[in-house]
Amino acid sequence: MSLDRLIAKIKETGNPTVAGLDPKLDYIPSYIKEEAFKKYGETLEGAAHALLLFNKGLIDALCDIVPAVKPQCAYYEMYGWQGVKALYDTIAYAKEKGMYVITDGKRNDIGTTMEAYAAAHLGEVKVNDKTFEPFGADALTVNGYLGSDGIKPLLNICREKDKGIFVLVKTSNPSSGELQDKPIGDSPTLYREMGALCESWGEELMGETGYSGVGAVVGATYPDQLTELRKALPHTFFLVPGYGAQGGSAANLAGAFDENGIGAIVNASRSIMCAYKKEENCDEKDYAAASRREAIRMRDDITSFIPALKK
Amino acid sequence: MSLDRLIAKIKETGNPTVAGLDPKLDYIPSYIKEEAFKKYGETLEGAAHALLLFNKGLIDALCDIVPAVKPQCAYYEMYGWQGVKALYDTIAYAKEKGMYVITDGKRNDIGTTMEAYAAAHLGEVKVNDKTFEPFGADALTVNGYLGSDGIKPLLNICREKDKGIFVLVKTSNPSSGELQDKPIGDSPTLYREMGALCESWGEELMGETGYSGVGAVVGATYPDQLTELRKALPHTFFLVPGYGAQGGSAANLAGAFDENGIGAIVNASRSIMCAYKKEENCDEKDYAAASRREAIRMRDDITSFIPALKK
Repeated sequence: MSLDRLIAKIKETGNPTVAGLDPKLDYIPSYIKEEAFKKYGETLEGAAHALLLFNKGLIDALCDIVPAVKPQCAYYEMYGWQGVKALYDTIAYAKEKGMYVITDGKRNDIGTTMEAYAAAHLGEVKVNDKTFEPFGADALTVNGYLGSDGIKPLLNICREKDKGIFVLVKTSNPSSGELQDKPIGDSPTLYREMGALCESWGEELMGETGYSGVGAVVGATYPDQLTELRKALPHTFFLVPGYGAQGGSAANLAGAFDENGIGAIVNASRSIMCAYKKEENCDEKDYAAASRREAIRMRDDITSFIPALKK
Repeated sequence: MSLDRLIAKIKETGNPTVAGLDPKLDYIPSYIKEEAFKKYGETLEGAAHALLLFNKGLIDALCDIVPAVKPQCAYYEMYGWQGVKALYDTIAYAKEKGMYVITDGKRNDIGTTMEAYAAAHLGEVKVNDKTFEPFGADALTVNGYLGSDGIKPLLNICREKDKGIFVLVKTSNPSSGELQDKPIGDSPTLYREMGALCESWGEELMGETGYSGVGAVVGATYPDQLTELRKALPHTFFLVPGYGAQGGSAANLAGAFDENGIGAIVNASRSIMCAYKKEENCDEKDYAAASRREAIRMRDDITSFIPALKK
């Protein structure tokens, strides 16, 4: 019902990072694409198969040192339902390898529609007497613009199935301040107001670690806000995008962690997926090993600022 | 690049309503489910096939009198990638029958990720030299919490492909006011601020009707806000949920329309899909005809308050 399973995996690996699985065909080594297209043609099915092969290689290379993966739905939907099947297969493979899976869908709606999203991504669905897990992730990112009606349907599934959610609070992009930084009602900013809602939604899902099942997305590109929100939201665990490609540095992240070295998980997508393109003289067939090297570099970079977590 | 194609269809049919296609197994007549399960078993594939058969019957019954359909992604994702395939097939079938398709996904993200969503739902994707339309809707609902970085990637595709978007402004649910009704920055409310952003995002996508390609979602359950926003956002076309099942009445909707009887399209989902359950002595095999009768009743109910549109 909380994010304790994720936090336990972070402690076990000594690594507060999550690998974003946001595969585009451009990122994928050509030998993988050739294999996929040979089997399924230059089709959406072929593209989806290439995504899956690429992801499996990454998961194999990362699963003993990185606690979690975060597939971003958009990159799978871009290849049609065939791509969405690759999302399903990716989640299943990552779980089989023991990784915690955060589906990054930023879903939002109300009432029975939000229940449908919750069942889709975190829960189960009944077909007559049989029960299926449509996607089966451990956690889902969501958008809270619609208020409590959009979040409450998720809390039930978090409780029943030991799952979690991450609500967008302060996003990593340059224009996030257009709305999120403005004072609203009695709150100094909209992101503080959204953060306060996260604390209150999480009350009924408190974990043994002191963090609830309702986390928040807070960008690495805004270090002052990370520090401010860590203090203001003591029970809300952070998912932190924006490290690496978007410009957030490890030193910027220190404020996201508590005195025990927990409190946040930092995402990197392109810098890990495409590490082989940046390494000098790296053969594309060595892409997964290059990703592992980059994941280790990132872990060591970040944990150098979090002595309490370092193994 | 605008919503003119949708507005033309509304005028052609004299009907400012959209049928929500939010199919749950519970809504579907048992003879359809039996046919689907016989073919594919009591599986997600069987459930997805039942969804598609149900939708096709509704589309056949509605396509000459209702201008648009709005499939809600959550109800398809709930049945896994198999359900998402049914979403694809539903969109293709509705377009074949000449209907305008609004995919209700409330998607949101930034930069290349939002580009991926835009390509997925409204645009095209390349697989080597071949081009595919992953889902091919005419418009997509989106959430603007992330600011302009989350919307700009959509505007390019709207311009190039003559597509539209609807941004959540004032949603129909009871708790929508938790955030949306609060004063923010210099604006009286967050929904007004989001509405003002819609007007500015739409400037570069102005249609000949005076409405841009950037619409807004405004709930039927808040008639005062509908009237207020119609005046404040003269170039922003409204998608109005909340009629029927959620309690919004036709009289409540009049303020959403301009003096020419355009300016909004009103959604009904359950009341149309499940009309056969409410009609006395209606055989379930007559479900599509019952939906047509309810769609006609709804059209006449709403247009009785919009004399300028009435045929």
